[in-house]
Amino acid sequence: MNKFLVTCTYDGTDFVGWQVQKSKRSVQSEIEKAIACFDKDKHIIVGCSRTDAKVHALGQCFHWETNLNIKSKQVIDAINAHLPDDIRIINAEKVNQDFHARYHAKKKCYKYIINNGEYNIFERNHQVFIKEKLNIEKMQVAAEIFIGIHDFTTFCATTLKEKNNQSREITALTIKQIKDIIEIEFEGIGFLRYMVRMISQTLIEVGKGKLSNEEVEEMLNACDKSACRYNAKPEGLYLVRIDYEKN
Amino acid sequence: MNKFLVTCTYDGTDFVGWQVQKSKRSVQSEIEKAIACFDKDKHIIVGCSRTDAKVHALGQCFHWETNLNIKSKQVIDAINAHLPDDIRIINAEKVNQDFHARYHAKKKCYKYIINNGEYNIFERNHQVFIKEKLNIEKMQVAAEIFIGIHDFTTFCATTLKEKNNQSREITALTIKQIKDIIEIEFEGIGFLRYMVRMISQTLIEVGKGKLSNEEVEEMLNACDKSACRYNAKPEGLYLVRIDYEKN
Repeated sequence: MNKFLVTCTYDGTDFVGWQVQKSKRSVQSEIEKAIACFDKDKHIIVGCSRTDAKVHALGQCFHWETNLNIKSKQVIDAINAHLPDDIRIINAEKVNQDFHARYHAKKKCYKYIINNGEYNIFERNHQVFIKEKLNIEKMQVAAEIFIGIHDFTTFCATTLKEKNNQSREITALTIKQIKDIIEIEFEGIGFLRYMVRMISQTLIEVGKGKLSNEEVEEMLNACDKSACRYNAKPEGLYLVRIDYEKN
Repeated sequence: MNKFLVTCTYDGTDFVGWQVQKSKRSVQSEIEKAIACFDKDKHIIVGCSRTDAKVHALGQCFHWETNLNIKSKQVIDAINAHLPDDIRIINAEKVNQDFHARYHAKKKCYKYIINNGEYNIFERNHQVFIKEKLNIEKMQVAAEIFIGIHDFTTFCATTLKEKNNQSREITALTIKQIKDIIEIEFEGIGFLRYMVRMISQTLIEVGKGKLSNEEVEEMLNACDKSACRYNAKPEGLYLVRIDYEKN
């Protein structure tokens, strides 16, 4: 058996998300279909991050096991040859048999892209347009609140009944502006469902002057799913990168 | 009766083109459907330019007659309120009863966008990626050949049997490069079907070193539909602007 860690990029616009959903177009199912074109044997892949509908990836990772005698470089070309034009494999490397794309991820990086300028129809699926001028300095101060280890129950929209541990660590949260483009960049060790989008929209509300730092702190400390009603639109979100410990 | 000249922008990716085609998604039919939401009476529009499938517009124009007592500013908002997110009305102005969006156009401007750098999945519908480095200086020299009044039969792919006059005037043809982006800009008084794309691909072949200026001149002078087998992909083409004589 050969096992590969594969990195791909996709435009999330026309997908229901990463994960397979019966008779719907998911990124995972398109990649599995592509692999099935040359590997009749086994073609289930395990992704690192379950991105939602319309969310994009610059560097999503998955692992794939195969009986084929195939080199890393060939993996890239073989899968790309059968993929639709909104997904592309950009890297592949051989890994040990015990490697797992989700469990062995050390750090993840996401970014949220806001366009604070004129509406541009050609960017509508790749940026979120906000007319109201955002106060970046205020957003940068509020962002500090989220850095570190916190119980992020407030910023998680999962409907799961089980009481999982909802503590996560955000190692960096930076906000940069270049002309009209504002990027919120998250780096952390695992994220809860909707966490990046809920925090992004909370920071946007701070930028609009609709939320104070005290209110944001109260929300976070509440550890209460009903304390945050904000969720930023999916089309502004990009899974940028996943870091693994070097073998 | 009120008559308006309306300007719109659209992302051509998911359209079969401007013109209505039975049971297919065209820009014209989407706009007519939107107008029908508030004007039960009359909702046929006449476009200036019949852009093809996947071709974009920054400033397409059409005229529309209505019995409604409505102001220009209201026209913009009323139509936009019912349009899908890949079309937007950007301007509307009242015109005389005898105004015609096609017959009264004085000049049209198109641009063709080439990305001569790394493939970027997020731009795949809005630029054409060419790996081979293009020689811009050569393209600029070849572009001069097309400027002025010529019989463009060679650069027209219409299947019409009738022998129409295929003389057209290109008033300007410029090629600019900013980093990896190369833009070919056409200004002229009417264009034949596929003319902009066929000339664009011919210039691209010159940039690759596969065609000489002499060969381009021969093609143009041949006035023969079979003399040019090049046609650039539609996703790189934008209808930029239509100029009308001021009333």
